[in-house]
Amino acid sequence: MKLGEGVEVAVHCAAVMVGLEKHSTLPAAALAEFHGVSASYLVKHLKALVADGILDSVPGPAGGYRLARPPERITLLDIVLAVEGRKPAFRCTDIRRRGPGAPDATAYVKPCGINAAMLRAEHAYRQALAATRLSDIVAEFQSEADPRSVARGCAFVASCQRKQP
Amino acid sequence: MKLGEGVEVAVHCAAVMVGLEKHSTLPAAALAEFHGVSASYLVKHLKALVADGILDSVPGPAGGYRLARPPERITLLDIVLAVEGRKPAFRCTDIRRRGPGAPDATAYVKPCGINAAMLRAEHAYRQALAATRLSDIVAEFQSEADPRSVARGCAFVASCQRKQP
Repeated sequence: MKLGEGVEVAVHCAAVMVGLEKHSTLPAAALAEFHGVSASYLVKHLKALVADGILDSVPGPAGGYRLARPPERITLLDIVLAVEGRKPAFRCTDIRRRGPGAPDATAYVKPCGINAAMLRAEHAYRQALAATRLSDIVAEFQSEADPRSVARGCAFVASCQRKQP
Repeated sequence: MKLGEGVEVAVHCAAVMVGLEKHSTLPAAALAEFHGVSASYLVKHLKALVADGILDSVPGPAGGYRLARPPERITLLDIVLAVEGRKPAFRCTDIRRRGPGAPDATAYVKPCGINAAMLRAEHAYRQALAATRLSDIVAEFQSEADPRSVARGCAFVASCQRKQP
C-alpha cells in the first residue's frame, strides 16, 4: 500500500498556514523553499487542496494561499482525500465473475465478501485520519517539538506572509 | 492511496485453497484460468505468499500450491503484507528538516507529529485487516454467496486438485 508523497508536504503546508495572521497569505514559492521542494510540484498539491475547499487561493502579485476554514474543521482525512482522491485503496475488479463457467450476473447481486472486508478496514483507517484535526497537529507541535524548530516556523510565517488589502 | 491489484487475486486464491482436501494442491495454471488472469502474473503473487509462509509450494509435475497453515491462522493482513510489503503507506521523508535555516539534527530527536498521526491511522487499518481471518471470509462466502457461485468454487477444487503422494 502506498500513499503519494504529496500528502506529506500538503499536511506540512497546511500546518504552517495555521500561524498566518487574519487575511494574510503565503506565496507558493516561499512555501516550496521552506520545505525544500520545487514550486511546480508543490502548486499541484496546493491546487488540489483549493479544489477541495481546504485552502483559499488569492490571486494577484500579492496573492498566495491560506486556510479556507478554521484548523479545528480540517482533518488529516480531508487533506489525504484532497491529494490522493476519494477512491478506496482496494479496487475490486470483481474477479469472482471472471474465468470460465462463472454464472450470470444474477448470481452476483450481493457485494463480494472480500471487497466488503477490505473496505471495512479502510473505513477504520479513514475514521482514524478523521479523528486528527489540523489544530491538534499544530498544538502538539507547539508543545512537543524542539523550540528551535517552532521558532523557525514562526519566523518563516512572520517574514513571508502577505497581508491582503 | 492505492493497493496493488495483486491483493485481490491473492485473497481469492487463498480462499479457494481452503476447500482443498488434505495433502492436495492446486496448480498455478488452473488457479490463473479460474480467476481469468495470466499465470505469470499470478505466480509472482503466489511466490510472495510462499515467501511469507502463507502458502506451501510443492514442486514437481504433480505439484502446486496449498495453504501452509489452517485458515483460522491466516488473516487479511498477512496476505496484504505478503503481496504489498511491510512498509507503511505513508513514507515520511523528514521534510521538516529540509529547506534553509533548519536547525541541526539535535532539534529532531522526537518523531515528527505528522508522521506519528499518519502511522496511528495505519495501525487502525492493519488492526482491522488482522481481525478478519481467511476462515471468516470462506464461512461468509459459503453462507451468504449465491449457491451457483459456491458450487462453481467447489467443482473447480474437486476437478483440479492434485493429491500428493
